[in-house]
Amino acid sequence: MSNENEMNKDGYVVWMTGLSGSGKTSIAMVLVDKLKNRGLRVERLDGDVVRQSLTRDLGFTEEDRKKNIERVTFVAKLLSRNGVGTICSFISPYQAVRDDVRANTTNFLEVFVDAPLDVVIERDVKGLYKKAIAGEIPNFTGISDPFEAPNNPDIHLHTDQSSVEECAQNILDKLEALGYIPVLHSE
Amino acid sequence: MSNENEMNKDGYVVWMTGLSGSGKTSIAMVLVDKLKNRGLRVERLDGDVVRQSLTRDLGFTEEDRKKNIERVTFVAKLLSRNGVGTICSFISPYQAVRDDVRANTTNFLEVFVDAPLDVVIERDVKGLYKKAIAGEIPNFTGISDPFEAPNNPDIHLHTDQSSVEECAQNILDKLEALGYIPVLHSE
Repeated sequence: MSNENEMNKDGYVVWMTGLSGSGKTSIAMVLVDKLKNRGLRVERLDGDVVRQSLTRDLGFTEEDRKKNIERVTFVAKLLSRNGVGTICSFISPYQAVRDDVRANTTNFLEVFVDAPLDVVIERDVKGLYKKAIAGEIPNFTGISDPFEAPNNPDIHLHTDQSSVEECAQNILDKLEALGYIPVLHSE
Repeated sequence: MSNENEMNKDGYVVWMTGLSGSGKTSIAMVLVDKLKNRGLRVERLDGDVVRQSLTRDLGFTEEDRKKNIERVTFVAKLLSRNGVGTICSFISPYQAVRDDVRANTTNFLEVFVDAPLDVVIERDVKGLYKKAIAGEIPNFTGISDPFEAPNNPDIHLHTDQSSVEECAQNILDKLEALGYIPVLHSE
């Protein structure tokens, strides 16, 4: 082990933003598996992970969403500057908030997980859109709360046109191209 | 870089517990410098670091102290299992809470930064004991709140008898002895 090498190898942050049901978590899980299979250090930060511990006091108002992302940013900052690939999937509807994450982390990639609203309403994976449209869930992004689409995402995925596997591979290719992970010559 | 090696190299957690003014932060800072000078990955988690971001909504009641440590534990868990040395200094007065951190992190070392109450009152570095004794600060550990001394700490430092430098070196020696960091043959 070269200590100098240990210090110099940075990690990165793959930040997936998009509507509920757009496919963020599914893509994150496949991506994490691929990275782990390569023996790389990787952590997944997702609502289902952090809202049990790190942010379990928070709801979904604009203020609480910002606090949620603020705490996740703290964790992503420490992981990414210590060589860990950090795969984050959060609706994160506000551009300014996403820009803050970029400013505070190492090798940040904004990934727009894009699916048209009518498609995610049609999918309604967790039955949430039905409730949100009926007014039973307040502050629901895309229905009663805004989603600010990324101005200039590093990667733009269209999950109504590409499979989860293709989307994950797309991100992996970008990580290789940027030199954030070693290039794999045969898979 | 061997990817297998990357995955297998664990980090550790140095958890310093003790009264306000016992010397936790001073020792942590010297220890972190020594580790960084060796080119090792290390992060310091301390009240002054996390209460600005991760836990800035929290006060010092028993409930808030527990939440504070719960969030720090989440971060320490992710860092320590990814090869990062995580140096934590928190009063953390409850044994059960410290045991929880141990259960949730990798290579945890409980370090009791011990100084008698009359010594830390005499030092009163931040002028806090005077206020606490006057009743101006509620829930002050050692005065109006309990401190549960570690039952069986991995390292027991006596800061009324040893210098900050000696205490930091003591921890460094233990990290070497346990194989958590490479042994340095000349310094």
